[in-house]
Amino acid sequence: MVETDELLENRVGEMTRKTNEMGIPLMIVIEGPPASGKSRLSNALYMALDAKYTDFMATRPPRDIDLRYPFLQRYWNHLPKNGDINIHFRSWYAQYIEYKTNTVLDNVRVDYEEIKQDMDRFEQTLIDNGYEIIKFYVHTTEAVRDKHIEKLRANPVLKWKAEEFAERLDKIDYENEMEQFLKAPTGCPWTVIDFEEKGGAINTLYRTIIERLEKRVEAEESAEASKIDGAFTNSYESEFFNFDFEKEKIKKKEYKEILPDLQSRMREIQFQLYEKKIPLVIVYEGMDAAGKGGNIKRIRESLDPTGYTVNATGAPTDIELAHHYLWRFAINTPRSGHIGFFDRSWYGRVLVERIEGFASKKEWTQAYDEINDFEKSLYNSGAIIVKFFLSLDKDEQLERFTDRQEDEDKQWKLTDEDWRNREKWDLYVEASEDMVRETSTARAPWHIIAGNDKRYARITALRKVIEACEARLGNS
Amino acid sequence: MVETDELLENRVGEMTRKTNEMGIPLMIVIEGPPASGKSRLSNALYMALDAKYTDFMATRPPRDIDLRYPFLQRYWNHLPKNGDINIHFRSWYAQYIEYKTNTVLDNVRVDYEEIKQDMDRFEQTLIDNGYEIIKFYVHTTEAVRDKHIEKLRANPVLKWKAEEFAERLDKIDYENEMEQFLKAPTGCPWTVIDFEEKGGAINTLYRTIIERLEKRVEAEESAEASKIDGAFTNSYESEFFNFDFEKEKIKKKEYKEILPDLQSRMREIQFQLYEKKIPLVIVYEGMDAAGKGGNIKRIRESLDPTGYTVNATGAPTDIELAHHYLWRFAINTPRSGHIGFFDRSWYGRVLVERIEGFASKKEWTQAYDEINDFEKSLYNSGAIIVKFFLSLDKDEQLERFTDRQEDEDKQWKLTDEDWRNREKWDLYVEASEDMVRETSTARAPWHIIAGNDKRYARITALRKVIEACEARLGNS
Repeated sequence: MVETDELLENRVGEMTRKTNEMGIPLMIVIEGPPASGKSRLSNALYMALDAKYTDFMATRPPRDIDLRYPFLQRYWNHLPKNGDINIHFRSWYAQYIEYKTNTVLDNVRVDYEEIKQDMDRFEQTLIDNGYEIIKFYVHTTEAVRDKHIEKLRANPVLKWKAEEFAERLDKIDYENEMEQFLKAPTGCPWTVIDFEEKGGAINTLYRTIIERLEKRVEAEESAEASKIDGAFTNSYESEFFNFDFEKEKIKKKEYKEILPDLQSRMREIQFQLYEKKIPLVIVYEGMDAAGKGGNIKRIRESLDPTGYTVNATGAPTDIELAHHYLWRFAINTPRSGHIGFFDRSWYGRVLVERIEGFASKKEWTQAYDEINDFEKSLYNSGAIIVKFFLSLDKDEQLERFTDRQEDEDKQWKLTDEDWRNREKWDLYVEASEDMVRETSTARAPWHIIAGNDKRYARITALRKVIEACEARLGNS
Repeated sequence: MVETDELLENRVGEMTRKTNEMGIPLMIVIEGPPASGKSRLSNALYMALDAKYTDFMATRPPRDIDLRYPFLQRYWNHLPKNGDINIHFRSWYAQYIEYKTNTVLDNVRVDYEEIKQDMDRFEQTLIDNGYEIIKFYVHTTEAVRDKHIEKLRANPVLKWKAEEFAERLDKIDYENEMEQFLKAPTGCPWTVIDFEEKGGAINTLYRTIIERLEKRVEAEESAEASKIDGAFTNSYESEFFNFDFEKEKIKKKEYKEILPDLQSRMREIQFQLYEKKIPLVIVYEGMDAAGKGGNIKRIRESLDPTGYTVNATGAPTDIELAHHYLWRFAINTPRSGHIGFFDRSWYGRVLVERIEGFASKKEWTQAYDEINDFEKSLYNSGAIIVKFFLSLDKDEQLERFTDRQEDEDKQWKLTDEDWRNREKWDLYVEASEDMVRETSTARAPWHIIAGNDKRYARITALRKVIEACEARLGNS
């Protein structure tokens, strides 16, 4: 038997203390068929790492509640923050195989080709945002595996575990299914560990981790600072804001007649979505004081509060900043049959972060694709996605700011930041133009709504939501 | 129809902005039988509050996974942080009634008298730590309720909701069960709202909230600063550290013989706990360099890593500091059948926080009862609780510090803080003495282990854990 090399273990400890200090988030994936020895390997690794920043996440067979979220929800929820380490004992790969082979899930419509792409894009966006992902596939011979299972079976207390292994090996063709992943071209390669005995396997595991982290640390130390550049042309053509604001109006009397009917219909739709387990995601972006909050209120007004949530996006907290920028939104994905409002959203990456230089040019430019992919994963889980951009002209904004300043009950709504943003009006318009152009898709279209007349904007948004839902409900 | 008073709504907004700024966490509980109007009330309230810091938490019927945690787990997990607001639409009260009347749960052993006490103590410790809890019971006449249900039934899309209400009213005797809570003496009184029509009910809701928050803000503003006082006598008798450290030793050869057998037994026990769905909580406290980490490692060494977690407690993060001090531990409670190690724990409240003045005298003195109550709630959920205090003498600590300083591979383990703590040795001993005396209970006893000899300490801890588990497994 090969003794585990203590020097290697110490070096793993040293390198992970280093990545922890440098704030590099690390995900170590350990896949392998049942009884391949991955428990023993994972336990050794878990013990070698500092428990202060290491989490062990085992992928169990999906529960009902998991099926009510996008496929990758569990992994978004447990994403490590900067400097932290996740050991993924069985990961999204095992989960893919569970979904595909678990007959309990027969009544869930899943497009496995789409899910495979979701998995790929998930890894890629993590890597592109600084995550280090190291993937192991633990493989063993049938002889070694059988010996292990027999040893368990001989112990009366552990016998049931042996049965469980045997049953899983029989039921789920894990190795066959994994082959496609091991062979597929990927930005994030696999290391295959042949488990003959524990010592040698652990040494391979440790050596791979050390090598990868040394390479990463070196790259990090020699990396140039990311370029901060909003890349504004200041010469855009604003097609999206060319409203005839004078025409986009609804009279008070008409509004009071239409609104209650639309709200009642919205309430019915909420119950229909609930019954059919369809999630609805409604995103609001727009100028400051464009009336986003009031608009959302009119949609909420007749809804059952147990079936919707409102996520109001402010400046990120420390913990949020220490994660992938999509994390704080992904963990608030509404479950199937529920409605999630986002009062500002993940689009902050290509708006405020671009404009204020919080994201580098590389980061905000790659974000268009990342966001489209993220919305695709929501769509793949069955979600209806409706996005509103509430526009208003510069004079109207000034009027509303002044109103807020003068009304004691509204003063809290106006901050110095609003005034600062107003000075950057043109940059906001250009960034918004780019955003709408890059991220309006058939599955998640943008609706630009003239916001000068609040009544018009509210009625229009309500109608758009109802239309989108009716289109889906009619087909499902 | 009474119009909802807009002035009241504005005042609710104003007062909650104030409590948000002051960092007061607020929990608004809304209970009431099915179809009593609480959805409409809660929705109005949800809309009146700022979504940036308001969460809406609906208590749904328990799922299987909920039953694998202590009764109050969901509410610990969703505890608001300082300044935030939770609207609890149905709360631990509704959950109590669900547990008691839901026949799905017939095979779960639950002591309802204990749970009622857990609920009471939960509210009390939140209040004692600065939480504001406002509880409403929405009540309506049968006539009003029937009218509401009939209206739903008349709409083809909403008909199923009417049936659900009718079924729940029939199946669960909510009103009768709630009576005991409404009548019971409590530190946290109920406001009963008679729901005749929405406007009047909302006004009562708003008025109560305003009144309570005005009172709280006033109290807060006139409150004297909490007294920071560790109240050390410097004249304690240390019974717990009177080991004959020379005798508490195990030879290397003997250790190498005993250890593997104990570890194998520990592995068997892990599987037995898993099968019988018994959670195991293992807490470690002790002097710096007493060998806690190495001791835990020997217990982990043969375990299946998918069935245990190690929680290493460092200085709290900002988010942790902004919650009840037990929160960061409560959310890491192991689920049934799993093992949770705590390398340092909630006892920090009466150790480092007392010694360093991070907790006021009121806070750390009340913490003994709070901690006993917390452990009682774990015990009530079926947990085995084992607590170790690893002791070592002052000379041995110095030797280990010096060792660490001189060994390149161990230097990272020694920080300036360790040296600072060492200067406060006597305070740590006195605080630890008090801790053990105040919190050693039959259901969660302390084991004081001589730590000068690491081998002895490891073998002793392993034996104690095995004993505690065998005692329970023998009976269950």
